[in-house]
Amino acid sequence: MWILRLNMTDRSYKIEEVPERYKQLGGRAMTSTLIHDEVDPQAHPLGPNNKLVFAPGLLAGTSAPSSGRMSVGGKSPLTGGIKESNVGSEWSAAMARMGLKAVVVEGQPADESFWTVHIAYKEGKPVVEFQQADEYVGQDLYDVYPMLYEKLSNKVQVAAIGTSGELKYANSGIAFNDMHKGPTRYAGRGGLGAVMGSKGLKFLILDAADTPRVEMANPELFREGQKKMREALMEHAITKPQGGLNTYGTAILINILNEAGGLPTRNFRSGRFEGAADIAGEAIFESNKERMGKEIYNHGCSPGCTIQCSNTLYDENCEEIVSCVEYESDWALGANCGIANLDAIGRMIKLCNGYGLDTIETGVTIGVVMDSGMIEFGDEQGTLDLIEQMGKGTPVGRLLGMGAADVAKAFGNPRSPTVKGQAMPAYEPRAVKGIGVTYATTTMGADHTAGYTIAPEILSVGGESDPLQADKAKADLSRGFQSTTALIDSSGHCLFIAFAILDIPSGFEGLIDEINGMLGTNMTQEEAVETGAEVLRLERAFNEKAGFTNADDRLPEFMKYEKLPPHNVVADLSDEVMDSVYGEL
Amino acid sequence: MWILRLNMTDRSYKIEEVPERYKQLGGRAMTSTLIHDEVDPQAHPLGPNNKLVFAPGLLAGTSAPSSGRMSVGGKSPLTGGIKESNVGSEWSAAMARMGLKAVVVEGQPADESFWTVHIAYKEGKPVVEFQQADEYVGQDLYDVYPMLYEKLSNKVQVAAIGTSGELKYANSGIAFNDMHKGPTRYAGRGGLGAVMGSKGLKFLILDAADTPRVEMANPELFREGQKKMREALMEHAITKPQGGLNTYGTAILINILNEAGGLPTRNFRSGRFEGAADIAGEAIFESNKERMGKEIYNHGCSPGCTIQCSNTLYDENCEEIVSCVEYESDWALGANCGIANLDAIGRMIKLCNGYGLDTIETGVTIGVVMDSGMIEFGDEQGTLDLIEQMGKGTPVGRLLGMGAADVAKAFGNPRSPTVKGQAMPAYEPRAVKGIGVTYATTTMGADHTAGYTIAPEILSVGGESDPLQADKAKADLSRGFQSTTALIDSSGHCLFIAFAILDIPSGFEGLIDEINGMLGTNMTQEEAVETGAEVLRLERAFNEKAGFTNADDRLPEFMKYEKLPPHNVVADLSDEVMDSVYGEL
Repeated sequence: MWILRLNMTDRSYKIEEVPERYKQLGGRAMTSTLIHDEVDPQAHPLGPNNKLVFAPGLLAGTSAPSSGRMSVGGKSPLTGGIKESNVGSEWSAAMARMGLKAVVVEGQPADESFWTVHIAYKEGKPVVEFQQADEYVGQDLYDVYPMLYEKLSNKVQVAAIGTSGELKYANSGIAFNDMHKGPTRYAGRGGLGAVMGSKGLKFLILDAADTPRVEMANPELFREGQKKMREALMEHAITKPQGGLNTYGTAILINILNEAGGLPTRNFRSGRFEGAADIAGEAIFESNKERMGKEIYNHGCSPGCTIQCSNTLYDENCEEIVSCVEYESDWALGANCGIANLDAIGRMIKLCNGYGLDTIETGVTIGVVMDSGMIEFGDEQGTLDLIEQMGKGTPVGRLLGMGAADVAKAFGNPRSPTVKGQAMPAYEPRAVKGIGVTYATTTMGADHTAGYTIAPEILSVGGESDPLQADKAKADLSRGFQSTTALIDSSGHCLFIAFAILDIPSGFEGLIDEINGMLGTNMTQEEAVETGAEVLRLERAFNEKAGFTNADDRLPEFMKYEKLPPHNVVADLSDEVMDSVYGEL
Repeated sequence: MWILRLNMTDRSYKIEEVPERYKQLGGRAMTSTLIHDEVDPQAHPLGPNNKLVFAPGLLAGTSAPSSGRMSVGGKSPLTGGIKESNVGSEWSAAMARMGLKAVVVEGQPADESFWTVHIAYKEGKPVVEFQQADEYVGQDLYDVYPMLYEKLSNKVQVAAIGTSGELKYANSGIAFNDMHKGPTRYAGRGGLGAVMGSKGLKFLILDAADTPRVEMANPELFREGQKKMREALMEHAITKPQGGLNTYGTAILINILNEAGGLPTRNFRSGRFEGAADIAGEAIFESNKERMGKEIYNHGCSPGCTIQCSNTLYDENCEEIVSCVEYESDWALGANCGIANLDAIGRMIKLCNGYGLDTIETGVTIGVVMDSGMIEFGDEQGTLDLIEQMGKGTPVGRLLGMGAADVAKAFGNPRSPTVKGQAMPAYEPRAVKGIGVTYATTTMGADHTAGYTIAPEILSVGGESDPLQADKAKADLSRGFQSTTALIDSSGHCLFIAFAILDIPSGFEGLIDEINGMLGTNMTQEEAVETGAEVLRLERAFNEKAGFTNADDRLPEFMKYEKLPPHNVVADLSDEVMDSVYGEL
């Protein structure tokens, strides 16, 4: 197994055997450990001393179900802290089959040139070529991907930045091809597209033809685990075929959160949106059924996924508007902007994909713009225009490309729904207290995936926790979820396995068996979760050296004095509760 | 003596006797202690829980020479830390005569209304009136001030925000009238205009008619001190009449710093500017002489100033272009933008004054814009256009109004010459190491006035220190200057007395005698400087609670790897040296 280092200063590369310290790491554990070990926490995120790391999950390339997620890591230009951004694609398996534990992108060109790095596999080793890519700069990724695939084999995997990354926006993700070779799978959060752009890396291409199977230490144990995991996923109501996610996609959450009074609406002015039903997962399913004349179930982001939660939104002529409409994108550009028109939201998402913009950061940014009076809430055309300006790099677009926190600053608006500079996702922390603890304390900036307490607080999965209860138990809940999440993010499993393994104990056993089978270890469940906690500690240590303190682990002040309808609640967890999350880790 | 509290939420006010803790404080000591004691360090700078404090220096209203400076304090929207912004005007004496130790502005209107607060003096007490001021919003302060003065007595003092403060820019100062009732004296740094704007306070007006003399505890000791101070100021080559400052203004430093290779040029790409002589103080003097047909010496910013360093720049028709052209403004919009045209620079400064923009932050912001390729270095018309957009609040203007650090972020440009979010002034920290220590460590963000080591490093005042020497001595030098400066900023004296009192020991004795005479104390020189150190400790404590750490006490990373011509030097002082400044305070 290799660590491949790409030197973008002189376009050379180096292949290293994986050192002992990294042998048992995958995904987030790999990216965060490497960034912790090698990047000066005070380095400028877009300077020559930051690094960008791609790492497949530990189980990548195996038959573990829904294990096609990988991690991209670096110091974030959005938060100024460490960042792991997670994505599902064919990529992860391809990296694993090529023996790549990590690709580390280093240095930067002295000029502003852009490059393609093409990684093939010959005689048991990766082989790297650098090519000029300036001709692709400035174009929509929906145009660029077909051009690339026409030129290359249809079997390669392509990671790319859009114009947002070229322009080095703090709001810029990294695109990975979906199973139809479109630019729609995103390591979206935290501005890693800009880090890739700052290194002059436009495309990273993997050609995994003629690669061997992934090896594991104990195939039998792995197979046992894999079976338990599969059974749990196939049984649980949320994850089973034609279950909640497969039928309605992640946007099934719109109605649920709206009902709970926790769907942030019009830049977090309310927890309830009168147009929720019109943009909900159910509405997507029904609209498609009516337009396509049949029930359409969802597809996967990566091979071997049994959950298959990715939808496609079709227009009146049965043409695809976009794939897919995630809950977060739907909410950010919908409820949060006062927009209840699904087709318009789909077109906005497509623009974001084409430019490489994070849909959450974009929707929250535009919500702040609306809250500040530049355009009205509900203005669909205005929103489309602003996203276009972002993609094209007009001065207004550059302003918005900085992300929600800075746009709030530009308008002198204290109503900035952000933590550590990153926009909050689709759960109101005043109405769902546990997720507020996660937003405030995770090393990532406001991020629901870092510790998804929504499971017990809203979905009655993995127990029950009253969302409005404001006490120390929420810190314990968030801490537990954050550690377990770091383990899942390192395994390469999709976070959605959590629904099944929290409710079905044999599913959790399956996860541990898979990992032990892969590594030849003998970890207990507690020991495995402790490896997740260790990842958090490294991330936290990095952030502390970068200048973060407990004062950064706070919800925005306006949420402490502004009551959120319909429950009329404020952010009322004490600083001590927040500080106990990492204080007691 | 009173503390006057203005409640902008309901437009009421309260007059309090000065509590014991505050009785011996003035200027910066007053603003920083009050902010430390009363403002939550985690409050949003533009939210209802920040406060804005106006405080005259301790010696305000007395005959101490050059003691007409005052302080404005608050939590800064630019740095996120505590801020004291210092200004010379007739204001300080007027406040003192009205018995006002501090005016504290609290709360904010629920709507976006703007108000005038008119403070008169009747029967030994301030009397306050609130009036709507919406009719003045959106206008140039050069138009507004004459309108106000026509309406009111010519004897009132007016503090105001321009459009930049109304728009709540992080780059927005507070204007105070000069001795000709123009809007040209600025508490410019740190965005306190936005804090005033967020409180809906457009004008703060003082009517100090029929006010008594300022009382002091030991008039005889004060008079002795005042005499020593005056003699020192009249003797020193820099501060005496028709000396360096009175003849050439602060811009006398252009040629000196250029010679030393420490004049930041084209966004800190060089320490030497080929056009320096064309924009130097000598050029201003010669241009005026030629155009006006006589030698013109400078005037004071406040009554009783013996230094009188404020110039006026005249055009070919003997009309005033602007007053005054300070070294910092001249450099920021000149050398730093590659512009060598004095008249154009004068017009840029006038625009900044009219809109309430800090000239340093504006010039460095535009330098970053040029460095990022949006306009070319040297583009005079482009610069004028951008400043106009800032004043008018176009989206581009709003972007630039965020200040240099954020504009660098918007352009993904690591070459951001800022510390703690505040733009560096006119001394290159790679070429003048001591001032780099001050930039990095002061509680204020990059600020030369916080510890002006230029005196020994460049001017051979108060000893000599090789500007290129990189060792621990620079930390000790900066620490000493920072403490003494905090004392001077609290006294109400102009910082320029430092030239005289550092070289002439009886001058320093005079300062201490003045203060002891005022307060009836018996402090030694060391004890007095220790009160300055105590102010720094309070400021530092506030910043720590706001989330600052040693990691914020650093020069920008690019200065560590990019060599600065002509000396080809980098920022090479260790983190340990930086941390010893406050570590050993």
